[in-house]
Amino acid sequence: MTISDDAFIHPSAVIDLPVDIGAATKIWHFCHIMSGARIGSNCLLGQNVYVASSVVVGDGCRIQNNVSLYDGVTLEPDVFLGPSCVFTNIRNPRANVRRHDFEATHIARGATLGANCTVVAGCTIGCWAFVGAGSVITKAVPDYALVVGNPARLVGWISRHGTRLKFVKNVARCLDTGETYRLTEKGVELEERT
Amino acid sequence: MTISDDAFIHPSAVIDLPVDIGAATKIWHFCHIMSGARIGSNCLLGQNVYVASSVVVGDGCRIQNNVSLYDGVTLEPDVFLGPSCVFTNIRNPRANVRRHDFEATHIARGATLGANCTVVAGCTIGCWAFVGAGSVITKAVPDYALVVGNPARLVGWISRHGTRLKFVKNVARCLDTGETYRLTEKGVELEERT
Amino acid sequence: MTISDDAFIHPSAVIDLPVDIGAATKIWHFCHIMSGARIGSNCLLGQNVYVASSVVVGDGCRIQNNVSLYDGVTLEPDVFLGPSCVFTNIRNPRANVRRHDFEATHIARGATLGANCTVVAGCTIGCWAFVGAGSVITKAVPDYALVVGNPARLVGWISRHGTRLKFVKNVARCLDTGETYRLTEKGVELEERT
Repeated sequence: MTISDDAFIHPSAVIDLPVDIGAATKIWHFCHIMSGARIGSNCLLGQNVYVASSVVVGDGCRIQNNVSLYDGVTLEPDVFLGPSCVFTNIRNPRANVRRHDFEATHIARGATLGANCTVVAGCTIGCWAFVGAGSVITKAVPDYALVVGNPARLVGWISRHGTRLKFVKNVARCLDTGETYRLTEKGVELEERT
Repeated sequence: MTISDDAFIHPSAVIDLPVDIGAATKIWHFCHIMSGARIGSNCLLGQNVYVASSVVVGDGCRIQNNVSLYDGVTLEPDVFLGPSCVFTNIRNPRANVRRHDFEATHIARGATLGANCTVVAGCTIGCWAFVGAGSVITKAVPDYALVVGNPARLVGWISRHGTRLKFVKNVARCLDTGETYRLTEKGVELEERT
Repeated sequence: MTISDDAFIHPSAVIDLPVDIGAATKIWHFCHIMSGARIGSNCLLGQNVYVASSVVVGDGCRIQNNVSLYDGVTLEPDVFLGPSCVFTNIRNPRANVRRHDFEATHIARGATLGANCTVVAGCTIGCWAFVGAGSVITKAVPDYALVVGNPARLVGWISRHGTRLKFVKNVARCLDTGETYRLTEKGVELEERT
């Protein structure tokens, strides 16, 4: 495991070696990275971020202040975690009961978790999904879904660029990029250009 | 007041002497414990935990990252505080008004407060109660109660082990431990073995 | 820009010069203040507070633990920010899209933001408004309004002292200070003494 020469680590951060930290990644004040953690390139970790040993953070992720990534959390590339969003890895913790079965929380490529949202252990967040600020996620979120509230509910769909999608006859266009999306029984998919 | 020789305190934590810290308790990165605080044995305090002067933490409590215990908060033994759960000690704070009447927040034995929940000043949490992740507590929570939502509402009952209880004719059995619970006008009680 | 000789800054805090910090302001453990930030006099910044470069904090503000003030946030004097309350400055962040249009979040004089509340980018909080603990603010909050919930909704009115106002024929008196408030089409106003 190696730390790229090109990574920036603020002197107040604590890194327990060995870890993997990729090129051009920045780790800011009062972070703590446990040994074994794997953090990709071009990532940002804001103030007071914690990363546990078995966590994997893909390239290009942006993690805002006060986020803790516990064992069981995996971030695919290009995930955005808003400030103070919260993960868990046990559904029913008790101080006096040792549980050994961490539930996995998988955040797929490009997803955004809004500020101060909460993700209950074991929930998967689909690719390019968007969780509204302050939401509480209690079940899986589909690809490209926009969910808000406590508990979070599906209220719409959103493009890779972060633009609301309005489907007409199961087809929608991203008004910012021109991409075309299709809504099928399997969910929303981006139409690949040919 | 004394710090047990057997306690672990990470060098980045700030401890204002004198304090009581019991045996086998661990205090992790960037914590701040104010003088006068009393922390029992076998406790865990995660990253960026704050403990005010008059706070009492019972034996065996597990406090996850980013939790602040303000004056007026008391934890009985074996309390679990999920990451980023938040306490308060004044109901109607104003920056320009000095209030001298901190409201007490008492967390009874074995209770679990879920990740990122909020406890309004003065609310008591009953023994072995379970507050769901992201909930907002605005009134007292009974013993063994399971509460969720904003504001939090009673949705069921839970055993000491953290298992949902299904009452039939006011009797329920914990499926994990075999313990028997009774639901009476006073609430839920564990049937003591004879 | 200058730091008042009379300000207190805990040694564990990181201050990137130059900044403005006024007289009698206290900055506590593990804070980070970026260069360019302007913080008034008689302020309190609790543990793990972050202040970005372009932020302005008025005199007499009290900022509790774990609050991050991002570019675009302005606090007028006497604002109270409860612990772990969360701001944002982009409505639809994506890790792989650079957005240059931070939305301004203006908190007017004397307002209180409750513990662990979330303010979506671009929302204005009126003077002496009161945001309940754990609320999620998704639109502007009027002067003297009391709002709670996710999303936050208007549930009443509150005085400068922090006391609920009961309007009878559009007039209410603060039971603690005797001040008179009027409810008009424009909202609530304090009746100036003559």
